[in-house]
Amino acid sequence: MVKGFRYIPPEKALEEVLKHIQSINEVEEIPILNSVGRILAEDIIVKEDIPPRDTSHFDGYAANYEDTLNASYENPVRLKIKGDIAPNEVHNYEISKGEVYRISTGGYLPKGANTIIPVEAVRVLDKETIQITRKSKPMEHVIKCGEDYKSGEIALKIGRIIRPVDIDLMAYIKIKRVKVYRKPVIAVLAVGDELIIEETSPHTYMIMKLIEEFGATPIDMGIAKDDNMDIMYKIGKSLKICDLLITIGGCSVGEMDLVPDAVMSMPKSKIIVRGIMRVPGRQTSFAIVDGKPILMLPGLIQSTIIGFYTLGLPLILKLSNNNAKPMKLKVKSFREIIIENMLPFERAVFGRIIELKETPIVEILTGKSLLRRMMIDSHGFIVIPPFKNAINKGEDLELNLFKPNLYDNYGD
Amino acid sequence: MVKGFRYIPPEKALEEVLKHIQSINEVEEIPILNSVGRILAEDIIVKEDIPPRDTSHFDGYAANYEDTLNASYENPVRLKIKGDIAPNEVHNYEISKGEVYRISTGGYLPKGANTIIPVEAVRVLDKETIQITRKSKPMEHVIKCGEDYKSGEIALKIGRIIRPVDIDLMAYIKIKRVKVYRKPVIAVLAVGDELIIEETSPHTYMIMKLIEEFGATPIDMGIAKDDNMDIMYKIGKSLKICDLLITIGGCSVGEMDLVPDAVMSMPKSKIIVRGIMRVPGRQTSFAIVDGKPILMLPGLIQSTIIGFYTLGLPLILKLSNNNAKPMKLKVKSFREIIIENMLPFERAVFGRIIELKETPIVEILTGKSLLRRMMIDSHGFIVIPPFKNAINKGEDLELNLFKPNLYDNYGD
Repeated sequence: MVKGFRYIPPEKALEEVLKHIQSINEVEEIPILNSVGRILAEDIIVKEDIPPRDTSHFDGYAANYEDTLNASYENPVRLKIKGDIAPNEVHNYEISKGEVYRISTGGYLPKGANTIIPVEAVRVLDKETIQITRKSKPMEHVIKCGEDYKSGEIALKIGRIIRPVDIDLMAYIKIKRVKVYRKPVIAVLAVGDELIIEETSPHTYMIMKLIEEFGATPIDMGIAKDDNMDIMYKIGKSLKICDLLITIGGCSVGEMDLVPDAVMSMPKSKIIVRGIMRVPGRQTSFAIVDGKPILMLPGLIQSTIIGFYTLGLPLILKLSNNNAKPMKLKVKSFREIIIENMLPFERAVFGRIIELKETPIVEILTGKSLLRRMMIDSHGFIVIPPFKNAINKGEDLELNLFKPNLYDNYGD
Repeated sequence: MVKGFRYIPPEKALEEVLKHIQSINEVEEIPILNSVGRILAEDIIVKEDIPPRDTSHFDGYAANYEDTLNASYENPVRLKIKGDIAPNEVHNYEISKGEVYRISTGGYLPKGANTIIPVEAVRVLDKETIQITRKSKPMEHVIKCGEDYKSGEIALKIGRIIRPVDIDLMAYIKIKRVKVYRKPVIAVLAVGDELIIEETSPHTYMIMKLIEEFGATPIDMGIAKDDNMDIMYKIGKSLKICDLLITIGGCSVGEMDLVPDAVMSMPKSKIIVRGIMRVPGRQTSFAIVDGKPILMLPGLIQSTIIGFYTLGLPLILKLSNNNAKPMKLKVKSFREIIIENMLPFERAVFGRIIELKETPIVEILTGKSLLRRMMIDSHGFIVIPPFKNAINKGEDLELNLFKPNLYDNYGD
């Protein structure tokens, strides 16, 4: 029997949970075009200098700067156009004294050239001749061979969340497929007789969509009855096909709260967390059954959500090999409010941004944990420390956005 | 001929662009499970009070508070258990004087009950009798009928970006399908002979992925040669199937920059913006051809990106009926840097968050606009006003994240 709670602070609970979670080490190779948002499972190494040769950064004329040294308004210098160079054109052109090539942005400099005279700085006298009145500096408007990346350099590090600009680089260096970590498969099982009227429960939909938003693959395991055998059977079935099982409901200490008991009745089971010191969501619990993690979320919607963000989101990120951290938004409270705290617990309240100033102004919404409105109308939640029972008007707070920016350190 | 630029400030350019854009008014009805991230095209009205009856917020006993008024430690009061009420159970139970129902969280109160005595505050004497030693308050632990939403209330407003918690609400009120605005279809056409070695260009991939990230549907129109007829042909083909065409490359004033001319050669064409006062990206231009918008992005990657975020992103959001605004992140500069400004233009520089403090510390990365590294290594960009040529160590800056949080005012 594990009826009783053994509440621990959320950060301690998270530490315990993460200790028991192994990141997925299976790798799959997928087309780069499908890889945005996935976690890179290999270093992407540049095999050739980028650019591969000295390259023009301007439309203009590739010249030897020494040929321009005497140019001035009083003493215009004429140079001979030897030909044209297109962007990325592979060539063996070279210039001798007094010669230039007409060159486009992205064109490789001919041998002997070491500066670009921009088209705006040139007077074209005829098809073969330009005149200049200003001297150039060496390597002016030239992107040096390897200035972007040197051959052998790691451009994208393992562990990085792949972004659109990464796709551009990989396409440019002719990588068509890329190794990424397999996405975690997360089974969701709702528990409660009252839910059986539908195929699945509204909270299951919500949690599945959150799982998707954070880059994992949800599986709907339907609803278990308030019956120990049914719960055990469906937990067992889920664990066979998932990397993590999330149950919703039935994890408090009422008569119908059978999930922790059912979990404990499974072979090789161990309860790691049984309650966290944060409300709503204090019933959130975590167990390992035969090596597989089970996150038990309470069923009242605000508790479900806060439990999910407190333990579920970091857990999913770790499973995913995603090292990113959710960024918090600095906000200010619109008004003074009194918080009904359940000591010594932290209290999560919902925050609605009502003015998008330099520091956004947030209205705090509170209400019983069965009510949806606070979450429907808010942008995220704010955690109030224990023993704090008021927020002042204008007080600085941190808003945990429901859809946070993930701070990716790009594998560093 | 429209060779010459007529630079205008970016905010003026954006105003001009948005003036010429109509939001898509076509609506489609889709299953709620596919609707996350879509823009709601109808008000979702609650048709019945939520909860539909006074509901218990605790596991406990539904009682009439008047029956508890005399209870104290000295004078315990006994109450008779008449039966059980499960969550959401529809019933016609009622209590008389001295009676209670055992009730689960989410159970509807029987007639005559007006308070919940939590299970923890009760001593169970036998199957039919509880004893209490404390008086209850009226409506204690009771969620009143309609306390979450009242019948007829708009819970989700038209224009809202649908979120997981909205799915929960819709599922709960038995909505299976929901009206959303059609996604804009955005054609992407790269221009340049040098690109023809591949089927499509790296920048096309990147822009397509950005279009997807911001909720629209990209179509790859391949590559047009540096040839007026080919460009016109492919623009014409694109405009037939898209809501917006984005071209990449060929919009500067070099010999190979044929896109603005090609656009102007189309029937019923009008150039609205020809250059913006922001570098990189100053070549970014915008035209209307036969009522359809064309955004012309320059081809050097930093210019492509900055042009996209400056005009393309807000344009896509407006087409999408998405009223959200990208949130900027307040950051501080890691060190003093000198900015090479091209007066009187704004300058966009890239920012890498190197420390995730309360106000994140950002290192500024600059380099020629053909280089990818600055973007690969950064989290977003910072816009420096014209005539400003240095950033101090510790200076407050605003970082435009590449993947910003979108501030949704939920239709208000």
